[in-house]
Amino acid sequence: MTKESLYLQLGYEPKKSDLICRWYIEPAEGMSLDEAATNTVTESSIGTWTEIKTAKKYTQRLAAKVFRIDEKTGIVDTAYPVEAYDPYDISCILASIAGNIFGMNCVKNLRLMDVRLPKEIVKAHYGPAFGIKGIRKLVKVPDRPLIGTIIKPKMGLNTKDHAQVAYDSWVGGVDIVKDDENLTGQKFNPFYKRVKETLKKRDRAERKTGERKMYMANVTAATTDEIIKRAGYVHEQGGEYIMIDVCIVGWPTLQTLREHNEDIGLVLHAHRAMHAAYTRNEKHGISMLVLSKFLRLCGLDQLHIGSMVGKMIDAGPQSVLRSRDALVCEDVPADDFAVGQKWYGKKSVFPVASGGLHPGHLPYLAKAFGNDVIIQMGGGIHGHPKGTVAGAKAARDMLDAVVGGVPPRKYKSKELQQAIKAWGMTEDLM
Amino acid sequence: MTKESLYLQLGYEPKKSDLICRWYIEPAEGMSLDEAATNTVTESSIGTWTEIKTAKKYTQRLAAKVFRIDEKTGIVDTAYPVEAYDPYDISCILASIAGNIFGMNCVKNLRLMDVRLPKEIVKAHYGPAFGIKGIRKLVKVPDRPLIGTIIKPKMGLNTKDHAQVAYDSWVGGVDIVKDDENLTGQKFNPFYKRVKETLKKRDRAERKTGERKMYMANVTAATTDEIIKRAGYVHEQGGEYIMIDVCIVGWPTLQTLREHNEDIGLVLHAHRAMHAAYTRNEKHGISMLVLSKFLRLCGLDQLHIGSMVGKMIDAGPQSVLRSRDALVCEDVPADDFAVGQKWYGKKSVFPVASGGLHPGHLPYLAKAFGNDVIIQMGGGIHGHPKGTVAGAKAARDMLDAVVGGVPPRKYKSKELQQAIKAWGMTEDLM
Repeated sequence: MTKESLYLQLGYEPKKSDLICRWYIEPAEGMSLDEAATNTVTESSIGTWTEIKTAKKYTQRLAAKVFRIDEKTGIVDTAYPVEAYDPYDISCILASIAGNIFGMNCVKNLRLMDVRLPKEIVKAHYGPAFGIKGIRKLVKVPDRPLIGTIIKPKMGLNTKDHAQVAYDSWVGGVDIVKDDENLTGQKFNPFYKRVKETLKKRDRAERKTGERKMYMANVTAATTDEIIKRAGYVHEQGGEYIMIDVCIVGWPTLQTLREHNEDIGLVLHAHRAMHAAYTRNEKHGISMLVLSKFLRLCGLDQLHIGSMVGKMIDAGPQSVLRSRDALVCEDVPADDFAVGQKWYGKKSVFPVASGGLHPGHLPYLAKAFGNDVIIQMGGGIHGHPKGTVAGAKAARDMLDAVVGGVPPRKYKSKELQQAIKAWGMTEDLM
Repeated sequence: MTKESLYLQLGYEPKKSDLICRWYIEPAEGMSLDEAATNTVTESSIGTWTEIKTAKKYTQRLAAKVFRIDEKTGIVDTAYPVEAYDPYDISCILASIAGNIFGMNCVKNLRLMDVRLPKEIVKAHYGPAFGIKGIRKLVKVPDRPLIGTIIKPKMGLNTKDHAQVAYDSWVGGVDIVKDDENLTGQKFNPFYKRVKETLKKRDRAERKTGERKMYMANVTAATTDEIIKRAGYVHEQGGEYIMIDVCIVGWPTLQTLREHNEDIGLVLHAHRAMHAAYTRNEKHGISMLVLSKFLRLCGLDQLHIGSMVGKMIDAGPQSVLRSRDALVCEDVPADDFAVGQKWYGKKSVFPVASGGLHPGHLPYLAKAFGNDVIIQMGGGIHGHPKGTVAGAKAARDMLDAVVGGVPPRKYKSKELQQAIKAWGMTEDLM
């Protein structure tokens, strides 16, 4: 073992105010785990590769500490004094705990598995404006899972056809219709016109069905200024929801949007496009759990957390459920993987299951997630053999079957049976 | 082979206006390379996992195409019609070509190796405001490499001590002093006070040395609004440079900053903290080359591209030189890895070598990069046995030795010989 030092204190009992990280570390060849861990925490704190002459006695209070090393699993726990950060600046925190260190040659692989944010940081942020309760009140659906769809094709429809697909989805039974992640402000379907036309169709769909219907316009745009402008426009036009590509737009844009949302008052849906470039490999990068926590902190109201079935894959099915817990629990449990989190009254985030889903997945998902989930189907609705209205009805009928305890294959719905025939049921596929 | 389709057209000759991507693809078990490639390009374009009924004849013009597959290497080339994007919106482009696809279960690993941006996209952006020429004019150094340092400890110094370390670095011989990536607006060294005090010291250092001296304040902050405010303040106080953590703040913040910089006129330095979470694994994620191209497009003036030596590691030494080429060439060469790039007159980006460097690395780096490089040393200056002034002098003397063709160990400089004694020379280490 390396000698205990400023950065390696295995007996250290973390303070309540410390930020805690849990890592998986694979040291580089010829390097011990405790050396690799110490170098990592040094770089993510106040040190560097060599002893410096400019360090002062008073700077030592900001040193991070390795306080637990498990040689068998490669898991390492570290503690960071909260005074090292601007508690409201997520970029400042991430530049330390998830910055340079992934590129250090002392590690072969480095994974930020989880993070526990202290009260001072949690309290400095807004958190979600609505929470699951607020969204349910808005949508007037007190307890069942919500059904969402993504307009397909993801890109290319003109505004009129886009709005029509939205309308068909709503009247078929969908609660929430969203743009896809790469539809922003392209010429073939410009943002401002799209919002106006689609919200008109929403009003018609609400009148026709007697239900509340939601449209999530994607406000992702070239500049933060334009994003805020687009969000404001949605509000002006009577919209209640927007979505944004959180991993691509980055933290200051999200924090800016959250600040402005105090006035605008929209539900903010987080699409995680690009996340899997760094969340997928279980040995390197940043876990979806960490991303989920920072998004709740920042104040997104909904987050696409993937699913255990469908076209996408997360770093194991447990990864999806861990994200869910981080979003919905006030006191997120700790275990061998997770370090837990208290949210000090911050509202919950509505978890969204999405990615290659169809009605046949719904019973499995409703069981895995419970009622508090938004189940999004894109191809699984617009790919229905009879088209979008039938696809939406199939999805909603499947939900009714599940809620009513009717075996899906016995539920009297032509559209649902067609969907099951086309794509099967999860139970058959597993 | 899978049948040719809308998305798989191996005979396709890309149009000049197409955006081109090169991928490394490892298909999931039981999946052929052409299936995995087709699914990937479908998802990053207008399709999804199942055939949809809402597709229109007219949307087909936006389909992306797989046009080359190399079964031996797993390398796949794809083409995207530029009409699919808002050409000025980097987030829109990345949400397509680097979005959901990293999480798809049809691939085991997926790497975006390179991208070639068509004229319509390049022309829609500002590109760098200064270029290497403009920076050299500002710093009044016509041809040699520039010497930079990062103030250490990275965090924790109070404002007075911070400014003093900057001063010592400048008078010792450093051209450019920068904040570190995780120093933003913490209480122990608040941003506005830091800028004011450090720029005062810069003025003194310029008077003392008769040279131009630069200070890069880190404007990374909680919100985009605050980032723009901080950039404006640096300008008001007579600063000429700022830096920002590009991977953490995301694209709309960078594009907002670049727009505002038309009025503010600062040199923008890009720190890449967090990049290695997705650039390091050569089989998955996004290459540093791709990141470098989008940053030049957006209009950053300098980029930390790592180094072939020191504490950081990139995805192979070639990775560093490829980034350099993407930043400095008007016509970036294509080869087995790279797809090339024409910049249509956009200015160059000054490459910055950094990460665990010391004077002993300088001869190697000057040879590898030529004159157009900024060599940054943090610990390699402030860790000098005699402190910062001596460390800065050692670095500058090493540069003089290299420029003058004097063998470093024969160069008459006590400080340089002390540095060599402490850390050795690259040649000895390799």
